[in-house]
Amino acid sequence: MDQNEPYYAVIFSSKRSEMDELNYLEVAKRMASLASEQKGFMGMENVQDEHGMGIMISYWDSLEAIKGWNNQSAHNVAQKKGRDSWYDQFTVRICKVERMYDFSKAN
Amino acid sequence: MDQNEPYYAVIFSSKRSEMDELNYLEVAKRMASLASEQKGFMGMENVQDEHGMGIMISYWDSLEAIKGWNNQSAHNVAQKKGRDSWYDQFTVRICKVERMYDFSKAN
Repeated sequence: MDQNEPYYAVIFSSKRSEMDELNYLEVAKRMASLASEQKGFMGMENVQDEHGMGIMISYWDSLEAIKGWNNQSAHNVAQKKGRDSWYDQFTVRICKVERMYDFSKAN
Repeated sequence: MDQNEPYYAVIFSSKRSEMDELNYLEVAKRMASLASEQKGFMGMENVQDEHGMGIMISYWDSLEAIKGWNNQSAHNVAQKKGRDSWYDQFTVRICKVERMYDFSKAN
């Protein structure tokens, strides 16, 4: 991501339940694709471990962009499915990214 | 974490290199323990997948607390080791958490 700070991050920290793996993966993929088409979307990071713990972070250029995605109708259907089926527990944090720096190993 | 917003998050998104696994795990564990003893520490989330991708987020009650941890000497040694050996790439983002909400499935 090239954009300067400040921008916004939505941190989604979750504990998955056991069931419904295939449907989850299919919808997660579709949601990532839909999010990337939203106005103001800057990028996404997603790490899931083998115990069902996950952190997914999406980056946005404004709070309005986050609101727009949060009101997207297919996303709302997936959110309901997440509460009803996929997650035992999750936490959502809306954050303002104030500073960032990158490190890359020289080859 | 019971504390109200705003507080701060340090998002550390990383791609591990292949080598030095045992030493890494030992130091990572020690750093998590040291961080938790720092003034202003609120909590930590850490998810690493089997491909070496990781997101570690630590939460702090102020920017001063983050600065304190960033200047801690054993942490500085580990940071150097991280750049020299453990990581191919990482990004650090300092964020202000403006809103959060939790979901837990009713049993």
